[in-house]
Amino acid sequence: MKSKRKNIAIIGMGNIGSYLYKYLNKNRNILSKKNNCFPFVKFISAKNIRKKRGFSIPKNKWLNNYLEATISKDVDIIVELIGGSEGPAKKLVFNALKNRKHVVTANKALIAKYGDELSKIAEKNNVNLEFEAAVCGGVPIIRSLKEGLIANKIHRVFGILNGTSNYILTSMDKQNKSLKTVLENAKKLGYAESNPSSDLNGEDVSSKLKILSSLCFNAFLNDNIHVEGINSIDKNDIDNANKLGYKIKLLGYAELINNIIYQRVHPTLIKKSSYVASIDGVLNAVIADGHPVGRSIIQGEGAGPPATTSALVSDISSILRGNIKFPFSISNKERKKLKFKNISERLFSAYLRFDVLDKPGVLSNITNIFSKNKVSIKRLIQNPIINKNYSSIIIITHASKDKFLNKIIKMINKKPYVIKKSKLIRIDEN
Amino acid sequence: MKSKRKNIAIIGMGNIGSYLYKYLNKNRNILSKKNNCFPFVKFISAKNIRKKRGFSIPKNKWLNNYLEATISKDVDIIVELIGGSEGPAKKLVFNALKNRKHVVTANKALIAKYGDELSKIAEKNNVNLEFEAAVCGGVPIIRSLKEGLIANKIHRVFGILNGTSNYILTSMDKQNKSLKTVLENAKKLGYAESNPSSDLNGEDVSSKLKILSSLCFNAFLNDNIHVEGINSIDKNDIDNANKLGYKIKLLGYAELINNIIYQRVHPTLIKKSSYVASIDGVLNAVIADGHPVGRSIIQGEGAGPPATTSALVSDISSILRGNIKFPFSISNKERKKLKFKNISERLFSAYLRFDVLDKPGVLSNITNIFSKNKVSIKRLIQNPIINKNYSSIIIITHASKDKFLNKIIKMINKKPYVIKKSKLIRIDEN
Repeated sequence: MKSKRKNIAIIGMGNIGSYLYKYLNKNRNILSKKNNCFPFVKFISAKNIRKKRGFSIPKNKWLNNYLEATISKDVDIIVELIGGSEGPAKKLVFNALKNRKHVVTANKALIAKYGDELSKIAEKNNVNLEFEAAVCGGVPIIRSLKEGLIANKIHRVFGILNGTSNYILTSMDKQNKSLKTVLENAKKLGYAESNPSSDLNGEDVSSKLKILSSLCFNAFLNDNIHVEGINSIDKNDIDNANKLGYKIKLLGYAELINNIIYQRVHPTLIKKSSYVASIDGVLNAVIADGHPVGRSIIQGEGAGPPATTSALVSDISSILRGNIKFPFSISNKERKKLKFKNISERLFSAYLRFDVLDKPGVLSNITNIFSKNKVSIKRLIQNPIINKNYSSIIIITHASKDKFLNKIIKMINKKPYVIKKSKLIRIDEN
Repeated sequence: MKSKRKNIAIIGMGNIGSYLYKYLNKNRNILSKKNNCFPFVKFISAKNIRKKRGFSIPKNKWLNNYLEATISKDVDIIVELIGGSEGPAKKLVFNALKNRKHVVTANKALIAKYGDELSKIAEKNNVNLEFEAAVCGGVPIIRSLKEGLIANKIHRVFGILNGTSNYILTSMDKQNKSLKTVLENAKKLGYAESNPSSDLNGEDVSSKLKILSSLCFNAFLNDNIHVEGINSIDKNDIDNANKLGYKIKLLGYAELINNIIYQRVHPTLIKKSSYVASIDGVLNAVIADGHPVGRSIIQGEGAGPPATTSALVSDISSILRGNIKFPFSISNKERKKLKFKNISERLFSAYLRFDVLDKPGVLSNITNIFSKNKVSIKRLIQNPIINKNYSSIIIITHASKDKFLNKIIKMINKKPYVIKKSKLIRIDEN
């Protein structure tokens, strides 16, 4: 093998870009020895050259116009670390691929939205579009699905895909604190961004799940997805779950059942003794069920500059070795447009919580509504709220169609005895 | 990308070879679409063409002399499924690489013994030597270390690397049965081979650990390894561990401390609440600690034809894509001959068990020996054995040098009050 060299442009110099740049400078020799090709950071561009980063960027590396990287003959690989599904990130990646540059990106929003179009350009131009860093940071799940588990027909992929929300749920449980208090803390510790809405409302998990689902099922990206976040989970839910032997986790599930895709993101009650319940703090874990391999689990740090750099460098190395791959594991010509169904007809057992006035007849009215909707009750707990004239009624149902569970919530929410929006949290009995 | 074709010779047609052959016949189209190269089984060879396999092998594919595959111009990839570190397997793989054939093997004994020599030939001849299937079957650990986690400096890799012994320990615990009874059962279920000695005595884990250690530390294979198996673990040990809040697992550890390699395989007491304790039955799990990624965990089916085929096909696919790699992650020129130390100076807290006559002065004599060897006792339990005139004394020590723990065992074993060989099981407090 003759040693070669590939030039890299890093566009975007926030925490991750800075970490990556320093990493590549420090480790280019070992990477060169492992990949038989020398990675050289030729250009850097970002919003502001003068930003305090704790290190200086040589003038001859700086590009005033980041798009120059896409047309320079001296650039082989463009690392996009701008973020966001539109604007400069979109422009950069489209232009880069059109100009036959390999692209490495950590941008899940961009890939989840424009991945199909981008993948077609990459395939046509015989360049790599790599996005290991877009899904679960340091967990090498993309590479494992595309390469290590390539032999398998995967029918289900699920897991904890967002470290911030997992940290928050874990801390609410272990530190006995409210979501608000824990979130403030998470921001201080750097586990939550100043605007954590996409972590809390499930959008971040949704983007990652769409990408995984597409990879696992050899299908085009599918925008139909049921998304709920953890915004409405409160300390009472966590305590109730605990008493019932469960933990609450924000889970993403993509399933292929009779050639129909189901995608869902929602808080889930999961048995304390289960593997997923043991994934605490900022950790991520992805579980893939496939044939012939059975169940595979990959777990690790989900975010942060070090873990993300690990993923970016694995992508860069793959390009250095000339390991040309279809971005979504299979040629775009062969990717399928699979049918989608929403989860309304799926069966779930569920935790329902009704905060209601302590009046005669309320419980009977509620159980009557369950009975009319043919949802059978497995367990019912009525907790009077001390010093207040209302109760919290917790009902665990047997497996029931999702649409009926939702209908019950809607019907009961209209009742005058309801003092707080009722809740539905699905249970995973695995 | 222009579609190509690569011819495969499968040598060895036991359970795994048969499964792989059928898998490749059934899935060659999808593999071809994913890798842009068509995998075609050109030749097959095995000890006996007439063996009952439930399917027939076309005559034009059969090679009477398996070594012909190594010189045939029609062969690109040789899959070695003969097994054993010497004899035909060794001859096949050496010859194949010398004749510039890519090699895929599931043979851990061969790679652990001759991996360095083989790797040099592969590198010189610019062909792949792939052995994902040699370590933990369906768990894509080799590919993850070489590619997904390539950015990281790994300083510790450990885990449950043998499904048979893990199944036995799990069953002894859950079914409350003796090792012998459980082993018979495991054989019936196909979880243990008719001769399971290398699974029970730690040799199988030892081979896998040497390979992992070499990959993680960019070092040549190192034969210095401390190996103990599970042969002497009995039901009492399992029960004692349980009462103390531990499970017993057979663990392999490779650690790089101050540029010195430590490799050890031994039964270990591990906290019930720990992740590793949750890996039950035939599952395998590998944990790698590295920088910058932190801790990564990969878990899955460790053995059996389906899981092993998943690994073999990932290796074959990598070759189909032309992803030429150094067999041990880095050029042989760059691999280091690292210093090794045995574990005698390492500190472990440990579980020691002394089965002794119920006589006055025995306990005082034992504790006196501990004190003389400067091993301090954290916990002591004396269990009288009902209807017999002896006791089982369990001592949990504080962290002590391994050599002193062993010295205590030796000294006490010489005492006339000892009725059964004393035991030392190290504790992992993580």
